[in-house]
Amino acid sequence: MRNSNRQWILRHRPQGDIKPGDLELVEQPLPVPGPGQILVRNVYLSLDPTNRIWMSDMEQYMPPVQLGEVMRGGTIGVVEQSNNDGFKPGDIVGTFNGWQEYVVLDGAQSYAKGVPLTAYMSVLGATGATAYFGLLDLGKPKAGETVVVSAAAGAVGSVVGQIAKLKGCRVVGIAGSDEKCRHVVEKFGFDACVNYKKEDMRAALKRECPNGIDIDFENAGGEILDAVMDNLAMKARIVLCGMISQYNAATPPPGPSLTNILMKRARIEGFIILDYFGRFTEFAAEMGPWVAQGKIKYDATVVKGIENAVGALDMLFTGGNTGKLLVQVSEETA
Amino acid sequence: MRNSNRQWILRHRPQGDIKPGDLELVEQPLPVPGPGQILVRNVYLSLDPTNRIWMSDMEQYMPPVQLGEVMRGGTIGVVEQSNNDGFKPGDIVGTFNGWQEYVVLDGAQSYAKGVPLTAYMSVLGATGATAYFGLLDLGKPKAGETVVVSAAAGAVGSVVGQIAKLKGCRVVGIAGSDEKCRHVVEKFGFDACVNYKKEDMRAALKRECPNGIDIDFENAGGEILDAVMDNLAMKARIVLCGMISQYNAATPPPGPSLTNILMKRARIEGFIILDYFGRFTEFAAEMGPWVAQGKIKYDATVVKGIENAVGALDMLFTGGNTGKLLVQVSEETA
Repeated sequence: MRNSNRQWILRHRPQGDIKPGDLELVEQPLPVPGPGQILVRNVYLSLDPTNRIWMSDMEQYMPPVQLGEVMRGGTIGVVEQSNNDGFKPGDIVGTFNGWQEYVVLDGAQSYAKGVPLTAYMSVLGATGATAYFGLLDLGKPKAGETVVVSAAAGAVGSVVGQIAKLKGCRVVGIAGSDEKCRHVVEKFGFDACVNYKKEDMRAALKRECPNGIDIDFENAGGEILDAVMDNLAMKARIVLCGMISQYNAATPPPGPSLTNILMKRARIEGFIILDYFGRFTEFAAEMGPWVAQGKIKYDATVVKGIENAVGALDMLFTGGNTGKLLVQVSEETA
Repeated sequence: MRNSNRQWILRHRPQGDIKPGDLELVEQPLPVPGPGQILVRNVYLSLDPTNRIWMSDMEQYMPPVQLGEVMRGGTIGVVEQSNNDGFKPGDIVGTFNGWQEYVVLDGAQSYAKGVPLTAYMSVLGATGATAYFGLLDLGKPKAGETVVVSAAAGAVGSVVGQIAKLKGCRVVGIAGSDEKCRHVVEKFGFDACVNYKKEDMRAALKRECPNGIDIDFENAGGEILDAVMDNLAMKARIVLCGMISQYNAATPPPGPSLTNILMKRARIEGFIILDYFGRFTEFAAEMGPWVAQGKIKYDATVVKGIENAVGALDMLFTGGNTGKLLVQVSEETA
């Protein structure tokens, strides 16, 4: 165990891309658990596009991280010391305590051992639940429908496509390289995948979705969403889960023309996983067996060292990762 | 009875505003009904924003009117001659036969006498049904919610607001003059109305909707919709019924930023009344008594003479009418 605690502090709200100095890595004394408290050593830190939103003061779904605070983030870790009868050293716990190596807490969500921690942090965690509830609750897929998924090689997109396949849909991914497209088809079983950096998206979606797009699981926004809007089927549902293409913009750009929403009696609906935390058991009951049986596969890109968190986050915006992006803060073993 | 039939023929697809020569008024011989047919004299022609869409070849919800064809439009008229046992001279019939004085048909929808024909053409017709199903089916208003209605003094908007009041909502209209705003509050019972030509819309909506907008019944699009998007309540529903601000544009402009759709888990859904024709009885059963009891009021602006139809249509885009815009093609009496 280290005898100090490194933390990333938000110093300035980034304007455009995150710049050196917007976040600062500071070294603090190791915190000491008081009565009833536990000391947790973080093992993995989840990096997500929404982290960029939390750094800004744009209108958002949770309070933004305040300047001077530890950057917010989902983590999984190991109990190192416990003054709480509900926990003992070596327990696996998930928290939301942010970009730091250690944290003292009154309690935390416990996880069963025997499941890879990277699964808890991806397909069996918030990103898996985002895919599950977003697709099923808002998209309402029916067998034979066509589902388009942007950021298809990402943690959410790859799971959306696999669930849609289990529901009998035709699934077309959108990703940023031929390699990712191949991966999405070969590993995750998508029917097709379009490289948006190489192809004309309108023409490609028209080719791959000859009956139109019934469901679009939108993670990208911008020109990708424009091309989707030109290829909607009647009564299409757009699950608006994210618009990573614009999170670094100084002011939100205009959206797509809504003409086809009207003409096709289509729907755009915003989705934030926070609203579904009360239904996590329902998700785990179905997703757990799917993962155990190999029906849903997952990837993780693991970057080692909390000192690399800011640089790693940038991979989400440049397409550098495949699947769930994690920072490994410490070793899995105690 | 005239012994000729004047018809408006679509000659060119308008580019931007409708120009002289895009439609031509021609005079044809009076048509003669064959066996089993009826001759109908049109009395009122419905003018609607969607007429401008039908003149274009943009992607739309019905085939566009073809060049050389009579311009499409909803009408109500009187049977002049009948070779059909189901109809007798003097019967009131509604058809969709377009911008002409007479038409020969195999049959038509019959209407009971004793109800003003202008009511059949507005509050008890397609525009009333648009308000009814759009608000109730897509908007799903709950008592205490705040409903915003653009084009509030128009045929659809004025009825949306009154139904929302019957459901216990706070109703805020948006219209293009102080006079219209006063009318909407005094005659139709809206709680407030904002003149978009005079006020800063974002500030005005914030003032009139202190708890945010739960339902937006959208007829305008453009800057009005932008201002609505900045004032959404959590889980807001935008019923996208029309975007008259952009129907004369050469290419569809971009839409509003979708950021708040995501952050507020809000929904935009397109609505076309065509999809609800099978449920007209349900609508008539509730709206008929509301109108008879004076709970729902309506206005009509009537322009006389089919030769004035093109000029009259322009009123929809310049704000020249209040309530339902009709062309009176012939006298109501036989």
